[in-house]
Amino acid sequence: MAVNESTRTAAAARVERLREATAGAGLDAFVVTADESIAYLTGFRPLQLERLFAVVVRADGGGAVVVPKLDAGQVAEAPDSLARVSYDASSDGIPELAELLDGAARVGVEEDHIVFARSAALTSRGHELAPGGGVIFELRARKDEGEIEAVRRACGLLEAAYALVWDVLRPGMSERELNGRVASFLRDGGATDSHPVILFGENAANPHADPTDRVLREGDVVCADISACLDGYWGDLTRCATVGPPSDWVLEVWALVRDAQAASIAACVPGTPARDVETAERVILETRPDLGEVLHGAGHAIGLAIHEPPFLVPRSGMPLAHGMIFTIEPGLYRAGLGGIRLEDDVVVRDGAPEILSTLPLDLVEISL
Amino acid sequence: MAVNESTRTAAAARVERLREATAGAGLDAFVVTADESIAYLTGFRPLQLERLFAVVVRADGGGAVVVPKLDAGQVAEAPDSLARVSYDASSDGIPELAELLDGAARVGVEEDHIVFARSAALTSRGHELAPGGGVIFELRARKDEGEIEAVRRACGLLEAAYALVWDVLRPGMSERELNGRVASFLRDGGATDSHPVILFGENAANPHADPTDRVLREGDVVCADISACLDGYWGDLTRCATVGPPSDWVLEVWALVRDAQAASIAACVPGTPARDVETAERVILETRPDLGEVLHGAGHAIGLAIHEPPFLVPRSGMPLAHGMIFTIEPGLYRAGLGGIRLEDDVVVRDGAPEILSTLPLDLVEISL
Repeated sequence: MAVNESTRTAAAARVERLREATAGAGLDAFVVTADESIAYLTGFRPLQLERLFAVVVRADGGGAVVVPKLDAGQVAEAPDSLARVSYDASSDGIPELAELLDGAARVGVEEDHIVFARSAALTSRGHELAPGGGVIFELRARKDEGEIEAVRRACGLLEAAYALVWDVLRPGMSERELNGRVASFLRDGGATDSHPVILFGENAANPHADPTDRVLREGDVVCADISACLDGYWGDLTRCATVGPPSDWVLEVWALVRDAQAASIAACVPGTPARDVETAERVILETRPDLGEVLHGAGHAIGLAIHEPPFLVPRSGMPLAHGMIFTIEPGLYRAGLGGIRLEDDVVVRDGAPEILSTLPLDLVEISL
Repeated sequence: MAVNESTRTAAAARVERLREATAGAGLDAFVVTADESIAYLTGFRPLQLERLFAVVVRADGGGAVVVPKLDAGQVAEAPDSLARVSYDASSDGIPELAELLDGAARVGVEEDHIVFARSAALTSRGHELAPGGGVIFELRARKDEGEIEAVRRACGLLEAAYALVWDVLRPGMSERELNGRVASFLRDGGATDSHPVILFGENAANPHADPTDRVLREGDVVCADISACLDGYWGDLTRCATVGPPSDWVLEVWALVRDAQAASIAACVPGTPARDVETAERVILETRPDLGEVLHGAGHAIGLAIHEPPFLVPRSGMPLAHGMIFTIEPGLYRAGLGGIRLEDDVVVRDGAPEILSTLPLDLVEISL
């Protein structure tokens, strides 16, 4: 993430909002451990391996960023309200963390990130840990305009990648070669990370398959899911193609998925429970079980992380709010034949939802 | 990871060894959640985002691999001793996991992987969780010959990357451009992931800095750390260079680091406590505090993960054993000037330790 004064000012304000939210939740302190949450609060995105990185914010004032000594040089741009605490290779960072939590009875943690070894170490020192992921995701979920523009820029890079894909893809090219070229293109365009998953024919029936040496053949469907992280923020789009004219199956599935996507996007307005966005597309997709299977939810929030809460799944009643950005990505899959998915990144606005890319949905036809 | 019959046979044997170790540790069951541990036991390396993936092995027989429905197609090659359990988007996978643990009082977990939300959910269902990372790392740490050859192949790819680096690197090229070219080269060579961290001049004083637009200049030191994952296994090497003739500081630091590395490699014999490998290099590096600072331990085990236990740090008394593979990577760093690190991957043998690359340590001189 590029660090500059406005990033630093934004980070400082976020630390204070977290402090207020911590107090408001009846917590004495909050321990932030997820990479993206640390980036949100400090402008520094850690390289987390086995070493502890954390931001501590105390409801009674004060706080710190805790990093291995090795990374102490990386947190220079963190807000001044956070002390810098580093530990050397003789420590696992827990004693330093515990010292910052001195006297804090109830401590919020990111329950989907902090690991058992660390939560057990804090518990054994007398802290009562409370699942607080919701507290920080409540902050992270409502993106400011700077963040929305960052996702839009990431989508812009993806649009350029699609132009490349449809330009170079021809029968005989392998999934591995194509995905490699796209990853190179994205990196050359400034992406710090990317996940192109462009699958051919029957491989596209598995939305999480890895690209293989399978080469493109006449009659194949192509399901092209491309995501990339640019300046700390992710974009994630999916478009589809056929090699030669589409089959009736492809035409029917594509039209159904397009309708499902439109219905879910229309549902992306403030106050709608997350599950209703999923329902909006599923009721359409499930009208045609003969065409294929629904294998996943409607989408997920996107921002500093490629997948972050809220998730658009049946078990989530979280109401949508202004500034939230979601992938909307209905898909239908049929084993042996392939899959069709259409995905855009959509920001919830007080008015109508806004799609953060300008890429047509069109089913592309690759010439033989 | 390429799956074939020998991989499948190896995975099936590992599941049985884990079952024996689980019983031996007085546990009723083990829940494996780390990506690489799942790969070790099933040949399938998950794409873990928010969804639960796990392998359950029960001391009393039986076990399963638990995956989101979306990924059910990926575990076809897992050992037959593991049932396939998948869950759809209406579940978070915990009920399915709990059913597999029915009646198991003491359950081992990977304490450095399983997150608080999941450990708390299992605890609230009456299971007593025990930190069991040591149980599975005891298995994973002792690599078989197939695994050793896989790390050797990854190192071979890195050696080719160094040839590229020293061939193309000239004053005026930026860190970003060079690291991008290396990542492309590694991917084209089959790497599924890589972390080139090649830093110039004063940037090399921070061993974990990210590549920037800093361009190479006369008089710079270059610290080139390159790692890549090939067929599921990582290699990780570091070599150094100067632009034009090396300064006296570089020559002195390089010779000291080389001696430190030789001492640590010589200490890599069965029975040596991990901390003694670190001491072997540190006592040499610390003879010259005027030259720079020691910022990290001696290294870490490497295999399915780029960093895995045992770690060669002062707090680890773990005895080295035949088949363990470690990075040995002493370094000395001086703010404003740069850093020198030399890194090889070394397998502990009942005889002498074996270095898994053939790349000379030589300080390279880049012509102006």
